[in-house]
Amino acid sequence: MWPNRRNSVHLFHVSAKFYRRRKLFGKTTNGSSVMVLFKQDGLATNTPANGPLAGKSTIGELRPLSTSEENPEGVNFGKGVMESTISITVVGASGDLAKKKIFPALFALYYEGFLPKHFTVFGYARSKMTDEELRTMVSKTLTCRIDQRENCGDKMEQFLKRCFYHSGQYNSEENFAELDKKLREKEVGKVPNRLFYLSIPPNIFVDVVRCASYSASSSTGWTRVIVEKPFGRDSESSAELTRCLKLYLNEDQIFRIDHYLGKELVENLSVLRFSNLVFEPLWSRNYIRNVQFIFSEDFGTEGRGGYFDSYGIIRDIMQNHLLQILALFAMETPVSLDAEDIRNEKVKVLRSMRPLQLDDVITGQYKGHMKGGKAYPAYTDDPTVPNDSLTATFAAAALFIDNARWDGVPFLMKAGKALHKRGAEIRVQFRHVPGNLYKRTFGTDLDKATNELVIRVQPDETIYLKINNKIPGLGMRLDRSNLDLHYAARYPREIPDAYERLLLDAIEGERRLFIRSDELDAAWALFSPLLKELEEKKIAPELYPYGSRGPVGAHYLAAKYNVRWGDLSSDGQE
Amino acid sequence: MWPNRRNSVHLFHVSAKFYRRRKLFGKTTNGSSVMVLFKQDGLATNTPANGPLAGKSTIGELRPLSTSEENPEGVNFGKGVMESTISITVVGASGDLAKKKIFPALFALYYEGFLPKHFTVFGYARSKMTDEELRTMVSKTLTCRIDQRENCGDKMEQFLKRCFYHSGQYNSEENFAELDKKLREKEVGKVPNRLFYLSIPPNIFVDVVRCASYSASSSTGWTRVIVEKPFGRDSESSAELTRCLKLYLNEDQIFRIDHYLGKELVENLSVLRFSNLVFEPLWSRNYIRNVQFIFSEDFGTEGRGGYFDSYGIIRDIMQNHLLQILALFAMETPVSLDAEDIRNEKVKVLRSMRPLQLDDVITGQYKGHMKGGKAYPAYTDDPTVPNDSLTATFAAAALFIDNARWDGVPFLMKAGKALHKRGAEIRVQFRHVPGNLYKRTFGTDLDKATNELVIRVQPDETIYLKINNKIPGLGMRLDRSNLDLHYAARYPREIPDAYERLLLDAIEGERRLFIRSDELDAAWALFSPLLKELEEKKIAPELYPYGSRGPVGAHYLAAKYNVRWGDLSSDGQE
Repeated sequence: MWPNRRNSVHLFHVSAKFYRRRKLFGKTTNGSSVMVLFKQDGLATNTPANGPLAGKSTIGELRPLSTSEENPEGVNFGKGVMESTISITVVGASGDLAKKKIFPALFALYYEGFLPKHFTVFGYARSKMTDEELRTMVSKTLTCRIDQRENCGDKMEQFLKRCFYHSGQYNSEENFAELDKKLREKEVGKVPNRLFYLSIPPNIFVDVVRCASYSASSSTGWTRVIVEKPFGRDSESSAELTRCLKLYLNEDQIFRIDHYLGKELVENLSVLRFSNLVFEPLWSRNYIRNVQFIFSEDFGTEGRGGYFDSYGIIRDIMQNHLLQILALFAMETPVSLDAEDIRNEKVKVLRSMRPLQLDDVITGQYKGHMKGGKAYPAYTDDPTVPNDSLTATFAAAALFIDNARWDGVPFLMKAGKALHKRGAEIRVQFRHVPGNLYKRTFGTDLDKATNELVIRVQPDETIYLKINNKIPGLGMRLDRSNLDLHYAARYPREIPDAYERLLLDAIEGERRLFIRSDELDAAWALFSPLLKELEEKKIAPELYPYGSRGPVGAHYLAAKYNVRWGDLSSDGQE
Repeated sequence: MWPNRRNSVHLFHVSAKFYRRRKLFGKTTNGSSVMVLFKQDGLATNTPANGPLAGKSTIGELRPLSTSEENPEGVNFGKGVMESTISITVVGASGDLAKKKIFPALFALYYEGFLPKHFTVFGYARSKMTDEELRTMVSKTLTCRIDQRENCGDKMEQFLKRCFYHSGQYNSEENFAELDKKLREKEVGKVPNRLFYLSIPPNIFVDVVRCASYSASSSTGWTRVIVEKPFGRDSESSAELTRCLKLYLNEDQIFRIDHYLGKELVENLSVLRFSNLVFEPLWSRNYIRNVQFIFSEDFGTEGRGGYFDSYGIIRDIMQNHLLQILALFAMETPVSLDAEDIRNEKVKVLRSMRPLQLDDVITGQYKGHMKGGKAYPAYTDDPTVPNDSLTATFAAAALFIDNARWDGVPFLMKAGKALHKRGAEIRVQFRHVPGNLYKRTFGTDLDKATNELVIRVQPDETIYLKINNKIPGLGMRLDRSNLDLHYAARYPREIPDAYERLLLDAIEGERRLFIRSDELDAAWALFSPLLKELEEKKIAPELYPYGSRGPVGAHYLAAKYNVRWGDLSSDGQE
């Protein structure tokens, strides 16, 4: 286990009052151990507690949690506090995600003053590249997109100066030892904290973690690793991945990203629910009729379906993004907003759910067609996809939580590629008004009279509550209006990308938005039997035209539970 | 009693299937009785059931209710159905209200196609005037304000052609008999329905009703009388007025207007509450902390304080407008939306309330001051107001409803003239979230964290719900945002004036928005002891500067019940 296993540790005590004795499992490259003490109370040296991060202190996450024992912000060698520095290594630096999301997010954090005073960014990949070449590559995707303040060019230059590159194999401890040497040069005189972002295919996760652990972990600071999905293909492969990662990492060093958890309105879900009395009494089977989690993309795999084809939409979107949001939505009130309390409640939701049944799932795959003289390709037209692929590019599912709060309430999920629009949203449909005095107006068209809370996660973040309202004017006619909160109108400032939030949280050791191993196990337990059955029975997906509203099977699935999809209503309000 | 007392009635039966036998108490001017039958089922002859009024059928009010026995829409004399006509007599035609509100409202109804096919408008007042002079007077206040469609000029001309004038004394049966003669000329060949709008001082209400009853009531159709406040000054005088009116009118012929009940958002109050599940569970002491009814004018009596001085703001605004809205807000779910069911529930609320205590009321009177070189007058500077007047131009009060739903919830009212802004609104402040996870953010500033539903009745109709929301961006900071329904944005069509709605309802015999005698009694019972005490003890009002936020005493009154006025919060959100 990294770094515990390979080090022996000596400690000494300086001051019981101001300096608390801490164990620090630090490994230097020559294998010798170090003795450190660090200041825990009093002023933190480089944490901008009164700076832009100050707001975060409101939920108490500036102080690292369980791993704070190993996460010094500064180290004292007997004459004052030593500053810390952070080295962020993007493994797989030449990949798409790194270029499009990770480097820009790091720059945005820097630009906004959220990064610590001392930091270094390293790209690591197999290709040969100089620092300068990396900078040129990175600079192409940096934009001064967060309000157009002056000096953006200067800031960009300063940021790029802190970016370096190291070329190496992903399974070479030696190459990682070379990286370690470069890192130490930048870290000299400071407490080194290291963050590895694994922007690489999952089959080399473990290699990289092993090499980084043995050859490039921090000597006296903390070391954390961010990994992105896929976390296996099913319960077994996921458990195996976790087991292997844990050979080298503690649970609290693993930051499993689900970037949907970093979305602004997903973050806001708990705020809405737990800080507003008007929602609290409504949040149960007594008032909620069904909940819908909807994800749509308006493009297909477009020649890049190789990875996707071996996973499919259920693994790619539902089992992680939508299920995570569902768990946040449905959880009981946590003891606090601390990461472990929230993750405990999320696991309870997942463990209260029935594993998905084949009857409660429909799958689809987009097919090609001509429209307006333009040809839209089928999924299987993608050259990286086998011609006889049965992989689902669309799926809809009904899930149930068998606990006191949610018994009998259908939680519907729907996710698809190559649909008529893009977006991600949560729709909460409320029950009908019992004994509705206005039923003569609505007749039996009960669905029109249902209140609905819509949280649009992307694009164009919005929260609105559909209410029945009198149409102004003489006479008494009702219609549905929205009580509306449109983010772009209310909050002129640009909303940060999910990766910014998640990177910052990882830097700060805030684990609330990352997925714990037992959460991951519980999530797979719900989906693995279904996925196995779909594959074993070679269930053919229902074909739907590229750019359409998806297979009609989704409507029949909803109808089975007396639900209507809110995003496909025909009342013209969408 | 008019018209029952002076007529004998004969009936005959034509067809059991299509024509139901009805009693019609019709008095002709020569005192002879008439025998009529009218078509009840099947097509109404002149009710635009599929026209603009069609929407109204949804709450079943196109058919007159209890008085339908006396309200034929058409009369059959053996050879087909006779059309009906309506004569609307505005008594006090040269007064301000008539010119500014009643004639324009009648024109707007005509313009929009809401008036029956056959109608005549008569002005009645003491001044000598020709029909042409009345038309000239009326035309000055007519505007084509409801969307600028073409032909407005034509429509106006056609409307004015139907306007006539009759000069007479308010206590002369002879003069009313002359009016009757003129009315009959216009009504010839049709079933005559007559509506009298008493736009006159209350001391001559009974005279006019007596004269109209004896000399100008409808022979074979219905006769209705609209009266406006003041309905007395206290329980005794109000009861006496009702007793006198009932010498000549049945309860269901009296239409007591409270024009606030005709406001769009007051009409919408019941819709919001009873047709939305999201509000239903919140509507009680369990979730609502207090409710505020606020009325502000930004001008004083401005030389016209004579009438006002003998009534004061409590009688002028609180005992009627605000109390009516309170009753609608707080009532239990009625059996139906029919007038009697709603009025029954309103009376129950009023009867469950404690009569106001002097301790729970503060009064104010505006004083003069100089501001920016401009002099603002004191109330007592008004030449029509006695110099030593103690009349309140401002009042705030705390009321309580001692029933299961509202026990202990303060209902606060506030009304004032010469304040810093004008408006009328309902504010519902919800309780705090128990065990709020976010309390560290808000600390002890609990009021900031309270949800509030605001229904702005005027101006600029809006409904919004204040919710706590995460400020977008990194970190976790909360603020209050609004879920908003701004009428001007959602409903581009102009909202009708309250008088249009109320006149139309009176024409149609819909009594839901008019005040029944027992409601009036219950309302006075709450205020009369207080008003008496204020006068007997010569309680001096707290002076406040013209154009200010009113006397600070209102804050102390609110503080007594742990309430903050929502319209005077300092969070800059108003």
